[in-house]
Amino acid sequence: MPREVSIIGAGMAQFGNRTDKTLMGLFKEAATRAIDHANLGDTPISSLYVSTMLAGELTNQTATASALADELCIIPVAADRVENGPASGGSAVKNAYLSIAAGFADIVLVVGGEKMREVPGDRITDLIATMTHPTAEYINGVTLPSLAAMFTRLYMNKYGVERKHLSMIAVKNHSNALMNPYAHIHRKITLEGICTSPEAEVNNPIIADPLRLFDMCPVSDGAAAVVLCAGDIAKKFTDKPVIVAGVGQATDIHAVAQRPDPTALNAVKNSSQQAFKMARLTPKDMDFAELHDAFTILEIAESEDAGFFEKGTAHKAVEQGVTLLGGKFPINPSGGLKARGHPVGATGVAQIAELTWQLRGEAGERQVKGAKKAFSCNFGGFGNNVVSFVLRRDI
Amino acid sequence: MPREVSIIGAGMAQFGNRTDKTLMGLFKEAATRAIDHANLGDTPISSLYVSTMLAGELTNQTATASALADELCIIPVAADRVENGPASGGSAVKNAYLSIAAGFADIVLVVGGEKMREVPGDRITDLIATMTHPTAEYINGVTLPSLAAMFTRLYMNKYGVERKHLSMIAVKNHSNALMNPYAHIHRKITLEGICTSPEAEVNNPIIADPLRLFDMCPVSDGAAAVVLCAGDIAKKFTDKPVIVAGVGQATDIHAVAQRPDPTALNAVKNSSQQAFKMARLTPKDMDFAELHDAFTILEIAESEDAGFFEKGTAHKAVEQGVTLLGGKFPINPSGGLKARGHPVGATGVAQIAELTWQLRGEAGERQVKGAKKAFSCNFGGFGNNVVSFVLRRDI
Repeated sequence: MPREVSIIGAGMAQFGNRTDKTLMGLFKEAATRAIDHANLGDTPISSLYVSTMLAGELTNQTATASALADELCIIPVAADRVENGPASGGSAVKNAYLSIAAGFADIVLVVGGEKMREVPGDRITDLIATMTHPTAEYINGVTLPSLAAMFTRLYMNKYGVERKHLSMIAVKNHSNALMNPYAHIHRKITLEGICTSPEAEVNNPIIADPLRLFDMCPVSDGAAAVVLCAGDIAKKFTDKPVIVAGVGQATDIHAVAQRPDPTALNAVKNSSQQAFKMARLTPKDMDFAELHDAFTILEIAESEDAGFFEKGTAHKAVEQGVTLLGGKFPINPSGGLKARGHPVGATGVAQIAELTWQLRGEAGERQVKGAKKAFSCNFGGFGNNVVSFVLRRDI
Repeated sequence: MPREVSIIGAGMAQFGNRTDKTLMGLFKEAATRAIDHANLGDTPISSLYVSTMLAGELTNQTATASALADELCIIPVAADRVENGPASGGSAVKNAYLSIAAGFADIVLVVGGEKMREVPGDRITDLIATMTHPTAEYINGVTLPSLAAMFTRLYMNKYGVERKHLSMIAVKNHSNALMNPYAHIHRKITLEGICTSPEAEVNNPIIADPLRLFDMCPVSDGAAAVVLCAGDIAKKFTDKPVIVAGVGQATDIHAVAQRPDPTALNAVKNSSQQAFKMARLTPKDMDFAELHDAFTILEIAESEDAGFFEKGTAHKAVEQGVTLLGGKFPINPSGGLKARGHPVGATGVAQIAELTWQLRGEAGERQVKGAKKAFSCNFGGFGNNVVSFVLRRDI
C-alpha cells in the first residue's frame, strides 16, 4: 500500500488583470499563502511542482520551477514544471501526490499560474490552440472556441440542451464568484439580462455560434497553490487534513472530429472512474464538484460523464436548481472557470484549493454546508487529457 | 518500502539535423524502438511522460504528451509533459519512477526530444537563455555560452585546468561517439588538430573566451525513450532488467553570480549524494558515468562534485586517461552531449538509455566491459536544477 497523502494548505493569488506583478510574483503570492495556511513553520519542503502552460511563450521564462525554488528560498528542493495544457495544474498535483506516495518526499508544494493578459487576445487564442491536433486541427485554424461551439451545437441537437440552460450556468457561476474574493469576475448577471430579455442580444452577443460571450471563461492572470503532506505526519500541522482519496487521469483521441461520438468525453469518464475506484466511493457519495467550465456546455457534459447525472439529463438538473450553491449537488461553488477565471496553468490547482477550503469548512459565504467529500475534474486539450480527484475529510 | 522499479527497454531516434521528421515523428521513432526493445507485446502502458523544453516555442505545439499518446495509439494512458530546462529528461524519468514506486502505474514510457535546428542559431541561444534568472541574468543578455565561459575561466584560475584538458575531453567524446550510431557528430578529431598544432587556432576558434568551438555541444534534433516497469513484473519481459537503485534531484541558487563559490556545483553534489544514499552505494562502486558535458568544463566539474574525483583534480585524471573508454573510470562512453548531441529535452532520457544498454552489455563497440553499476547526471539551468540516477544490474 502506498502512503496516504493529505492536503494541509491552500492559497491563491487574486485572479484577474494583474499588471502589478510578474508571473513569478503571482506564483510567490499564491505559494506564500498556501505555506502560511499549511502552518509549516520551519519544516522543509521536499519537492516543488510548478504548473504553467505558456510561461515560455508569454513571459520568456522556462525552467520556472527552478526559478521559483530560488525565489521562495526553498533550495535545494527538487523542482519540476509540468505542462499538460489546461490540465497542467491537475497533472502537477498528481505528480506531487506520487512523490509522497512513493516515499520520495514528505511535503510537496504545488504552484500553478499563468500571466495571459499582456498579449493581444488573438495571440492568446492562437497560443491556446497549440494544444489541438497539429495536423488535423491546428494548421487548419481550429481554435478552442470553435471546437466548443461545434461541440455545443452537437449537444443541443442530440440532447435538447437550450440556450437558457447554458445561460443558467453562467448566472450560477457568476453568483458563486461574488462570494469568492480571489475570483476574476465579480459581476452579478441575470437570466433576463443575458438570455430572455430583448437586451440580451446586445448584452450577450454571439462569439462562435451558438456560443455567446457569457458562455466563455475570461482570459485571466493568476496563480494558486496547495501543500501536500504525507498522511502520517499531517496531524503535526493541522487537525483538518484533507485526504487525497482518489486520483485518475486519462487521455482520449486527440482530434475531436475523429472520436466515434464527439459528444462523449471518454477521458472524463475514464479518469473519474479511476479516481472513484481508488477512493472506494461513487459519484453519489460526493457533496459537490468543481468542474472545468471553460465553456458553459462543458459543465453539463462533464457532470454527466463523471457520473453525477445520466447522459443527456444534466441540463434538466440545472433547470431544477440542483447544481446551485444551495442545491442538492452544488457545482463550481468557487465560480468555476467562467467567473473565478482561467489562468490556464493555475486552474487545476485552484480547483484543489477550493476543495480543500470547502472540506475544511473555510469557504465563507460560499461554503457548501457539511461538505466532507468532493470531486474535481481538470480538462486538458478539448478533453484529450483529463485529471480527476476525489478528496475527503474524515471526521 | 516503495516498489522496486526497473528499466526494461531503451530506444533513440538518430540525433542530428532531422529535417525529415517533425518533433512528433522523432518522439515516435524513439518510442517505438524502446517499446520493441522492452518486448512489451500487447501489455498496456499505464503512463507516458514526455520531456521537451521548447516544443511550444519551436514547433507551436503544447500538451505534447497528449498528442504523443494519440500518435502511439496508447490511449487512455495517463500522460504528462515535464519541463525542467536541459534536465527535462531526468525529471521525466524521475516522475515515471515515482508513478511505479507509488503503485499508480506498472509500465511507464518516457520519451524526450527536441527539434532545434529549424530556427536560426541566435534564436536558439536566446530561447535556451530563458532558463537563466529573469532579472539578474536574462534581461542583461546572459547566454549559456557566456555563463560557461566565465565558469571555465574561474575554474582554470582556481584549479589549474588548461586548454589542453578541455580539448582532451572533446577528443575523447568525439572518439566515443564514432561508435554510437545515434550520435549527431561522427567526426574524429585530434588533440593536435584542435589544440596543439598551429592550425588549431583556425580549426578550433574562440567562441566565448576561453571557450572554443570544440568545447561546446552542437545544436541537435533528436529523441530518446525508455520503458520503466515495476520490479516485480520486469522478469516477464526481460532477463536483463536494469534497476533504478537511486534517484536524486536538487536545486541551487538561480543566478550563478550570487553563489558563494560559483565553481561549486552544489546541486550536482546534493542530487548525487541523494542518489548514492538511496542506492546504498558510493561513487567508488560505479563502473562508468554519463555526465552533462554541454561544455567541456562541465564534465570536469560534475565528475568532481558527484564524488568521482577530489575537487580540482579531475583534469589530472583526464590527462592520465582515466576517463577514456578503456580507462579506469570511463565518462560519457556514448559521446556525451559534446558529440552524441544535445536535443535539450532528449538528453536526460538518452543518458538513461545509454546506461541501460551498457548495463545489459548491448553497447557494441563502445561497451564498458563488465559494467554493472553506473551513474548519470542531467544538469538543468547553469546547475540550478540537477537530476542524478544510480542504475545497477544484478547478476
